[in-house]
Amino acid sequence: MNAHVNFADLEVGFDVPALPGMNEADIQTPCLVLDLNALERNIRKMGAYAKAHGMRHRAHGKMHKSVDVLKLQMELGGAIGVCCQKISEAEVFARAGIKDILVSNQVRNPAKIDRLARLPKYGARIIVCVDDRANVAELSAAAQKHGTVLECFVEIDCGAGRCGVKTSDAVVEIAREISTAPQLRFAGLQAYQGAMQHIDSYAERKAKLDAAIAQVTDAVTALKAVGLEPELVSGGGTGSYYFESNSNVFNELQCGSYAFMDADYGRIQDKDGRRIDQGEWENALFLLTSVMSHAKPHLAVVDAGLKAQSVDSGLPFVFGRDDVKYIKCSDEHGVVEDIDGVLKVNDKLRLVPGHCDPTCNVHDWYVGVRDGKVETLWPVSARGKAY
Amino acid sequence: MNAHVNFADLEVGFDVPALPGMNEADIQTPCLVLDLNALERNIRKMGAYAKAHGMRHRAHGKMHKSVDVLKLQMELGGAIGVCCQKISEAEVFARAGIKDILVSNQVRNPAKIDRLARLPKYGARIIVCVDDRANVAELSAAAQKHGTVLECFVEIDCGAGRCGVKTSDAVVEIAREISTAPQLRFAGLQAYQGAMQHIDSYAERKAKLDAAIAQVTDAVTALKAVGLEPELVSGGGTGSYYFESNSNVFNELQCGSYAFMDADYGRIQDKDGRRIDQGEWENALFLLTSVMSHAKPHLAVVDAGLKAQSVDSGLPFVFGRDDVKYIKCSDEHGVVEDIDGVLKVNDKLRLVPGHCDPTCNVHDWYVGVRDGKVETLWPVSARGKAY
Repeated sequence: MNAHVNFADLEVGFDVPALPGMNEADIQTPCLVLDLNALERNIRKMGAYAKAHGMRHRAHGKMHKSVDVLKLQMELGGAIGVCCQKISEAEVFARAGIKDILVSNQVRNPAKIDRLARLPKYGARIIVCVDDRANVAELSAAAQKHGTVLECFVEIDCGAGRCGVKTSDAVVEIAREISTAPQLRFAGLQAYQGAMQHIDSYAERKAKLDAAIAQVTDAVTALKAVGLEPELVSGGGTGSYYFESNSNVFNELQCGSYAFMDADYGRIQDKDGRRIDQGEWENALFLLTSVMSHAKPHLAVVDAGLKAQSVDSGLPFVFGRDDVKYIKCSDEHGVVEDIDGVLKVNDKLRLVPGHCDPTCNVHDWYVGVRDGKVETLWPVSARGKAY
Repeated sequence: MNAHVNFADLEVGFDVPALPGMNEADIQTPCLVLDLNALERNIRKMGAYAKAHGMRHRAHGKMHKSVDVLKLQMELGGAIGVCCQKISEAEVFARAGIKDILVSNQVRNPAKIDRLARLPKYGARIIVCVDDRANVAELSAAAQKHGTVLECFVEIDCGAGRCGVKTSDAVVEIAREISTAPQLRFAGLQAYQGAMQHIDSYAERKAKLDAAIAQVTDAVTALKAVGLEPELVSGGGTGSYYFESNSNVFNELQCGSYAFMDADYGRIQDKDGRRIDQGEWENALFLLTSVMSHAKPHLAVVDAGLKAQSVDSGLPFVFGRDDVKYIKCSDEHGVVEDIDGVLKVNDKLRLVPGHCDPTCNVHDWYVGVRDGKVETLWPVSARGKAY
């Protein structure tokens, strides 16, 4: 149960989709539901894995954007803190008392740099990624202005094709610049191979990660040669953490989606060719939806459309049912094929969203359920914190 | 300027992307920007069209979810009220004093029906869509309980393939049921041909609408034959309003996207084969984004990804520029092809989102700009109101 929400002020329907103590059947839809038992099992499992492999786990807060879920990851899963992508997200976590925060992204806007440099005043270790020498002086000036220390990771582009530098020379050059800049500290490397996380085949993912690990190992060797051994080498996601954990070069994981799972991640395969949502991780996040029209015998219309989810990675699937299929999505509607006409108006379905991160970002609340009862409501604390 | 936001309490960056009076260059990104001049021109133009054609214009609030934009549509464009898709949206508009509200959708959940039946107490005319006889008794019971009157449209499925009935017999049957149910009033027909709005070719759209208009005309004839002439026949969107306006059967429009425009609507053609965003309507809505990494010479990474927009209808385009192109989107990043390396870190781009409705729904604020200055901030009043 979270302590920071005053449920007495909230109206079911208008403000919140449910209140603690309600039956699951009375939840107002569409809304996000967390199966707390499954969530806790996922969190404990990743925690045990990281511990067994001597890895720090910095849970990725960009996925759930929730202080409560993060605290569960720290409590049950031994997570050491959080990473997130935006300064506004970092502010949410810092204000909530989280003490180890990585902005796994570049911060370049002057006003944002200023906000970042104030964050260590919350008593938190603040790390930010850098991929441009010009950024070093900007960060240092802001840290000096606020009398704080900002720690920096040099970001390596090891295949994502986005931010980050590609050569060990560039890594060393930026690390050196950081190490001599006032009020900055060179803390390590950011190396997240994002482009491969969703490749279905284990062997193909491994090939991409082998290349990434070689690149990162080369960078670490080059850094050591100039006396700049990185304290932390951070990366890894739900589709790759076992590669980083056995790499002998990474020492920190950044997994996020394992806790909730989604349809797109569920499709990727483990080393035995089995979908990872059928053994490795459990679906803990659902988009609960209700049938609100069944005017055609073979089509049910449900109340979860584009404003309740992101379909960038495909449509959701209906959890636990083979007899009905979510086949089309518009702003406020989903069309469910119901060949046998088994659904009735007000029947509820648990959808597994195509992509959890941007789906969570359109909701204000997680409804935590256990054994058919609503146990808690957690705000999506950093929802919409994009700037 | 809106009167209901206390700007003094808001922190730029954490709470809001900008404050009134700021220069456009200082807006924190990513965020939604409205070009107020273009918005006002679009609104006046649709208002003039509706007036000239003797049509009521019920502006679609599901698109912008904003009380302030709606009030502008009423003030400058003569809109008679609003339609929206969810009871929680209707509550936002009713609480804001809007007096004519259509929920252009079915309401079936008992708790939602109860909320709907309370809404007339705000002094508003409340209309809801019905496509199932069983719904009539539910609505009537709730209206009796609260001592209110609910008005009902029978929804015709004239091609959207979602909610609604398909035959005139079914229309008459439900209308008759409504007309005799205590505390309900049969107010007319909902007939929105959603499936065709985004067909590029004018001729193909016209063919679909001709069929829809024939279907609606048949239903109206059948209703008149049993003494149930509909007061309102409502439908039409940005891709079709001229068909409904010249149909001699519709008397109310429900256009939404014309006010903001988006990339997907922009591509559809007017009767002369010209894109509708190049003459008929202006782009008034932009997703403002900044370059936050340019570690590769030909790729700029911007700060607007999947959490700042919906890509269900394709990627955004960069407004007013042919030299750079938004080519890829991940959670918090957009990759912009910059062949000539013209962009620099912190440069801003105005993106035209692929689909305005679900894009607006991930943001908390509209930043209204005029002549390079921030003039106002409008909350996305019904953001996230999905249940």
